[in-house]
Amino acid sequence: MQPPLHQACLPLAPLLGLWRGTGNGHYPTIDSFEYVEEVNFAHVGKPFVTYTQKTKSASDGQPLHSEQGFLRVVDGTTMEMVIAQPTGIVETHVGSYVSNGESFIVKFDSVEVATTPSAKSVEQVSRLVRIDQNELTYDVSMAAVGEKFQHHLEAKLQRVQAD
Amino acid sequence: MQPPLHQACLPLAPLLGLWRGTGNGHYPTIDSFEYVEEVNFAHVGKPFVTYTQKTKSASDGQPLHSEQGFLRVVDGTTMEMVIAQPTGIVETHVGSYVSNGESFIVKFDSVEVATTPSAKSVEQVSRLVRIDQNELTYDVSMAAVGEKFQHHLEAKLQRVQAD
Repeated sequence: MQPPLHQACLPLAPLLGLWRGTGNGHYPTIDSFEYVEEVNFAHVGKPFVTYTQKTKSASDGQPLHSEQGFLRVVDGTTMEMVIAQPTGIVETHVGSYVSNGESFIVKFDSVEVATTPSAKSVEQVSRLVRIDQNELTYDVSMAAVGEKFQHHLEAKLQRVQAD
Repeated sequence: MQPPLHQACLPLAPLLGLWRGTGNGHYPTIDSFEYVEEVNFAHVGKPFVTYTQKTKSASDGQPLHSEQGFLRVVDGTTMEMVIAQPTGIVETHVGSYVSNGESFIVKFDSVEVATTPSAKSVEQVSRLVRIDQNELTYDVSMAAVGEKFQHHLEAKLQRVQAD
C-alpha cells in the first residue's frame, strides 16, 4: 500500500508518476542522436523522491543511457538532487524551484561532479526541468572532456501513469 | 525480452538477481538498529549492472534507507561502482575483485564521497561484498560526521529470484 507523500516532498508532487517521451542530444565530441525515454519519480513516504531513467535509441530500440538518483526539498525555494550514472559519473546538485500545484520548474546546477578513474571527465552539469500538468520538458547542459559548458540534451515527455 | 549479459559484465554474473535478508547497523553517533533488506542487481545487455537497494525497519516495517547505483568491470581484477543515496550522498568506488563462477568477492574503497550542502559529512566508505552461490553478505565501513573510519553495517541476504 502506497503511504501518503511526506509533507517535506509536497513541492515535488508534480513530478510523481511514470513519464515517456523522446529527446535528442548533441555535443562537439559525438554524433548527434535521438532517443526514446522513460522516467519514473516515486516515493515511499520518506522525505525524498526517487528518480530512475532509461533511454533507448530512437532508430533501433537498443538501450542507451540510464541514471538513478534522489531529490529532496531543503526549503521553499531550494531543493537538492544526487544522481549516479553507469558511465562512472555521480553528480550533486542544488536547484532553485517554483512549484505551484500542477506547474513546476527547477534549475539544478551541479555542486560537484565526481568520476571513477576509467570514466570520461565531466566538470559541470546543469539540469532544467519544467512540468506543465502532464507534460515534462528538460534541458541538460554540461562541460565535459575539455569542452566549454554548453547545451547537450533536450526532451519532452508525457505522464503516462500517475504515482 | 532479456538480452544476454554483456561480455564485459561476466565477472558480475554471480550478483544478478533479487536478494532479501536482514542486517544491522551501528555507529557512535546513532542508536544501533536492525533492518530487513531487498537488493536487486540487473542488466539490460549494456556493459554495466544496475544496483537498487531498500531497507525497512525490522521492528515496525517502516522504510528506512534506499540507494541506487551502477557497477562496471575495468579488467580482470578491478571494477568500479557509483552510488547515490537519498540523504544527499554520492560515492565513487574502485574495487578489487575475484569472481569464480558461483563465488564472488569484491572490496570497494571510495575514491570520492560528495555530499549536498544540507547532507551530513561523509569522508570515506568501504564496501565488502561476498557471494557464495545464493548467499550474499556485506560489510560497510565509513568515516563520517567527524568519527574515525569504522564498521557501520553488516547484512546477510539470500537470492530469492534469479536474473
